[in-house]
Amino acid sequence: MALTMLPYHNCLLGDAEVSAMLGEAADLAAMLRFEVALARAEAASGLVGAVPAAVIADRLEHFRPDMIRLTQATLRDGVPVPDLVTQMREAIGGEAASALHFGATTQDVVDTALALKLKPVFTLLEQRFEAVDRILADLIDRFGDRPLMARSRMQAAILIDVGDRLSVWRKALAQLAAALPAVADRLLILSLAGAAGTAEKFGDKIDPVRLAMAQELGLSVPEYVPHTDRDRIADLASFLSRVTGALGKVGLDIALMAQNGIDQIEIAGAGGSSAMPHKRNPILAEVLLTLARYNATQLAGIHQALVHEQERSGSAWTLEWLILPQMIEATAAALAHAASLLGSVERLGDPD
Amino acid sequence: MALTMLPYHNCLLGDAEVSAMLGEAADLAAMLRFEVALARAEAASGLVGAVPAAVIADRLEHFRPDMIRLTQATLRDGVPVPDLVTQMREAIGGEAASALHFGATTQDVVDTALALKLKPVFTLLEQRFEAVDRILADLIDRFGDRPLMARSRMQAAILIDVGDRLSVWRKALAQLAAALPAVADRLLILSLAGAAGTAEKFGDKIDPVRLAMAQELGLSVPEYVPHTDRDRIADLASFLSRVTGALGKVGLDIALMAQNGIDQIEIAGAGGSSAMPHKRNPILAEVLLTLARYNATQLAGIHQALVHEQERSGSAWTLEWLILPQMIEATAAALAHAASLLGSVERLGDPD
Amino acid sequence: MALTMLPYHNCLLGDAEVSAMLGEAADLAAMLRFEVALARAEAASGLVGAVPAAVIADRLEHFRPDMIRLTQATLRDGVPVPDLVTQMREAIGGEAASALHFGATTQDVVDTALALKLKPVFTLLEQRFEAVDRILADLIDRFGDRPLMARSRMQAAILIDVGDRLSVWRKALAQLAAALPAVADRLLILSLAGAAGTAEKFGDKIDPVRLAMAQELGLSVPEYVPHTDRDRIADLASFLSRVTGALGKVGLDIALMAQNGIDQIEIAGAGGSSAMPHKRNPILAEVLLTLARYNATQLAGIHQALVHEQERSGSAWTLEWLILPQMIEATAAALAHAASLLGSVERLGDPD
Amino acid sequence: MALTMLPYHNCLLGDAEVSAMLGEAADLAAMLRFEVALARAEAASGLVGAVPAAVIADRLEHFRPDMIRLTQATLRDGVPVPDLVTQMREAIGGEAASALHFGATTQDVVDTALALKLKPVFTLLEQRFEAVDRILADLIDRFGDRPLMARSRMQAAILIDVGDRLSVWRKALAQLAAALPAVADRLLILSLAGAAGTAEKFGDKIDPVRLAMAQELGLSVPEYVPHTDRDRIADLASFLSRVTGALGKVGLDIALMAQNGIDQIEIAGAGGSSAMPHKRNPILAEVLLTLARYNATQLAGIHQALVHEQERSGSAWTLEWLILPQMIEATAAALAHAASLLGSVERLGDPD
Repeated sequence: MALTMLPYHNCLLGDAEVSAMLGEAADLAAMLRFEVALARAEAASGLVGAVPAAVIADRLEHFRPDMIRLTQATLRDGVPVPDLVTQMREAIGGEAASALHFGATTQDVVDTALALKLKPVFTLLEQRFEAVDRILADLIDRFGDRPLMARSRMQAAILIDVGDRLSVWRKALAQLAAALPAVADRLLILSLAGAAGTAEKFGDKIDPVRLAMAQELGLSVPEYVPHTDRDRIADLASFLSRVTGALGKVGLDIALMAQNGIDQIEIAGAGGSSAMPHKRNPILAEVLLTLARYNATQLAGIHQALVHEQERSGSAWTLEWLILPQMIEATAAALAHAASLLGSVERLGDPD
Repeated sequence: MALTMLPYHNCLLGDAEVSAMLGEAADLAAMLRFEVALARAEAASGLVGAVPAAVIADRLEHFRPDMIRLTQATLRDGVPVPDLVTQMREAIGGEAASALHFGATTQDVVDTALALKLKPVFTLLEQRFEAVDRILADLIDRFGDRPLMARSRMQAAILIDVGDRLSVWRKALAQLAAALPAVADRLLILSLAGAAGTAEKFGDKIDPVRLAMAQELGLSVPEYVPHTDRDRIADLASFLSRVTGALGKVGLDIALMAQNGIDQIEIAGAGGSSAMPHKRNPILAEVLLTLARYNATQLAGIHQALVHEQERSGSAWTLEWLILPQMIEATAAALAHAASLLGSVERLGDPD
Repeated sequence: MALTMLPYHNCLLGDAEVSAMLGEAADLAAMLRFEVALARAEAASGLVGAVPAAVIADRLEHFRPDMIRLTQATLRDGVPVPDLVTQMREAIGGEAASALHFGATTQDVVDTALALKLKPVFTLLEQRFEAVDRILADLIDRFGDRPLMARSRMQAAILIDVGDRLSVWRKALAQLAAALPAVADRLLILSLAGAAGTAEKFGDKIDPVRLAMAQELGLSVPEYVPHTDRDRIADLASFLSRVTGALGKVGLDIALMAQNGIDQIEIAGAGGSSAMPHKRNPILAEVLLTLARYNATQLAGIHQALVHEQERSGSAWTLEWLILPQMIEATAAALAHAASLLGSVERLGDPD
Repeated sequence: MALTMLPYHNCLLGDAEVSAMLGEAADLAAMLRFEVALARAEAASGLVGAVPAAVIADRLEHFRPDMIRLTQATLRDGVPVPDLVTQMREAIGGEAASALHFGATTQDVVDTALALKLKPVFTLLEQRFEAVDRILADLIDRFGDRPLMARSRMQAAILIDVGDRLSVWRKALAQLAAALPAVADRLLILSLAGAAGTAEKFGDKIDPVRLAMAQELGLSVPEYVPHTDRDRIADLASFLSRVTGALGKVGLDIALMAQNGIDQIEIAGAGGSSAMPHKRNPILAEVLLTLARYNATQLAGIHQALVHEQERSGSAWTLEWLILPQMIEATAAALAHAASLLGSVERLGDPD
């Protein structure tokens, strides 16, 4: 959307680090890396000359597209790649220009760029899982033995320990952290298959080209190039929603524990009210719940986009671009907020 | 999200005009208008002095908050209003400072600001409906009598006219355009009810204050202030999704008509491919379908947010902010794209 | 689904009255009524003979299709109508058989049958709204003046009255009840437009045939027959979700009020636990929340089905059948449960 | 829902085999198996006597609850288990009655019963994946070398082989089939943790009791009992939607290939029309698309239900019961329909 979130909402609901990892500069850099790595790999296999490949790498090192033109062209082409390739060719010039992008298609560039952008995101998520786990371990250490009235169906049940409840939070998150690498592996792949997924311009060179490119880019070569099989995207989105769901449970539990009259938790620095200065609102707990409901909602859209007709669906593919980055950012924000919220807990357990 | 959409996607999927109507400057201006109108209306009713009200209006005329502070405070408070009010009071100073925001609560400010921001949006949507209608009338005029093979369940059915199909598009959109004013009326309301919705600080002055404020702001006074009744929001979101749904049908029909081998439409300036320069892709038709699926997805989130507990739900309310602006922008973009796409039709009807 | 809900869940989450209004017997009866009314109206306009029309009416009076054959044919045809018409023709025989279904298409039958089935449903919903309203009025009468700690963001805010909170519940529901007739009017229409929506077999008789049929069936004649414009369906589904959303708020509020430690409500006959006989679980309050989240989820599917390609979409139309009846039933159940839950309230307001 | 699907829709959109695996008889049997296995395992650990455990097993062998009473009790308790346990105790009588259900809670019964019911479902899904795979292999064998115009963004791209497109279908499904066992493993677990998840009545006997029960029931003992961690449910639902998404792509591709004017496929026994007997509608292809959009929609509801507050959420848990069985059945139906549809293909590839 042209609509940047309002800056105050951004701070509350977005994540600046992830935003940079997925934003314009990162996207352009990833697309350029694709083209350079392609030229090099093709040169190594003799599909294009070594000199044109070197020229391409050289000229693209400091290449910056005309963004206004690129943006307008995207409105015409539905993707930035056709005009970006044209602009790159203009910048490269000569024989090397025609060697650029040889055998590749727009989706190769965009899907591989997604993989490149996701790499640091997965590292970030992993670190944030670890941070939350450490804080939970510390809270269990500090407050785990204190009594807590368990509640089922929102009614007092039997007395348990704070550690009983927090261990459930922790184990749920630990299982998700443990599942992350397998989800990530499926995403960190090279896409190179040409116009209709058949790599028709590569002949028997496709395997070495893919291997060389994947190695340079730090990606793996998938069993087959899933241009129209978006299962890994749906799997990632499901994972993200499972993470925010687990954190949403933590958030709702904390909001319920923080109720006056229940008083099972104290949080430093809770939020103020414009009308009632005495209040201490559990803002981040509520935000965790919001982000859980947000991602659960979005997930349906990514799964609708699994229906990717024929050899490339403009409509289904475009739907991913509207939803997936937001889900990633919401998940990263939720992990950060969980760390911040749990890190500010000053007391846990039934009031004395 | 901190994540601005990629600029090339923005141009394709967003709407700059709506973005400006809902963005930071518009939001701040609307919140300031609320406070000035409140002070004036309260002065007229004797709840605050005439002098403080005049001072408030004067000092806020060129007031700009410290955005960094405001943003950080929102992370603490969950809404910008508490710190914004504090900053305004600092700028106003003296006795007038304490007269500011008298009797109001955060939600009064935010919900009324939404109404103020939506006003030009509804006008824009109305104009875009009219534009699409004119273009459809023109297409029916030019091509309506040409034969078109009707298709049911994607199979050739019987021969109809181009006008038969286009009239369905047109009537569906005309009914939605006719429904817009009633949807809009429910949104263009003043919210003024205080901390728990009971206007407890106003006594018998609440009615004249509301009337005066509503008149100054060009809003209506609702039968009751629906702080926790988000039905009008859900109704608006449903309307937006119905609009993009109707346009998505147009988009899918055009994409199907544009298939090589079907050839029932010719569109000027269709999109290019990085791998296949001969292709002419019906980009905007696909985007209409994408935006329909996007809004249908988002709608579920807005309806989840109907469950707004007690006198104010932090989590449900916040969910609206993540979804509603994007739905509005997607709808405006879809109407603009429909006008652009339909305006570039060069031929309609079965090939000769 | 072949899967009937488990009988114990049915009682909790379904509604037997609505189920009967939308079930097999009602559906078959509605489709037969369509055919008889069509034959009569066509006879009145001279499109078919008066004798065949009388024979049709006579033979269909006690007609029951071979359900096994009909079911198998639906697997082939995607709709029951083609085989149902064949079976009806076999039962009618002779000249009259060929007069049956003249000029109509499957969608005319199915969409009109939906309208006929919905008629008693709307009456039922209206009655249930009234029942809930009466009970809320009574609760306000009995407990409205008792103090209640308002809560915003789940934290104690200021003291209000029970009547303040319950009036919000009541007004929200009253506005929805008031909106029902307009939503219903759009649904209670005759669909008669033939294979591609152009009524191509009727010539200038289409208007009198429609008027006569509509009068006999107690439906209205729409401005145009919206075979592929499903806006009224999306509007109905949105309305249903708005109703369950408003009731979900009531349910969540009650569940929160019923918490031990908050104790703002006492409900007779609350549910038991297999492990903890002392507990009194606010089952119906939770179910209201469940049904709100259920309908909010389903709504996205109905709006996806707005994208109804060309002159008839098999896939989008079929999606309605999987979702709309369930949403209707969930809404009726929620209204019934709300009446039951509110009717069993024994105390409201802060504990002494 | 009380609403059984209309029988003709059932046949088209449901699956009788799965329905039986998840229906009333299966559910009751699974709950009884839980109680018998619990009593035996507790007897082996000395928590209950060997005689009472034998009596329990004996009396429950032919036990049938009073279904009317059970259904009414569920409306009160929100789950059938409390009254079912009472009815079982009445049937068992004496000392053994009080040994029944020792240490267990309702959720132990319901969640374990779900695992027991899912076991044959996973086997069925596996078999259906294999059937579809065999048929696709056969189609690739018969038609793989025939030319097919690839289409990207619904426009003719370059010539590929039928085998190129079908291999993408097949590989996508093969990857999902390969992922099924890991998804299933997480579901096939014993839940035994008592009222608040702490197994408070078992002391140090909990491990041997769990092991013995799990062995008898053919389930595994999870690392921890995830009463409130519904991640495995969300993971299963995501998997189901990924399967129907992959099949929805196949369905949409086939519907597009079957268009008159494209004619890339011929299917035996395509569906008829009540108005146009000449038509051959690709019903099952459309149904695959419908089921994909259905499951993508439902998935959001299951992920909303991840927010499972405190030690047991009535509302979130209940939401699963309304959605998960339907998703399972839709998935099984989609696999069956895919096999049927692909098995009826008579020609593939561009028309001569």
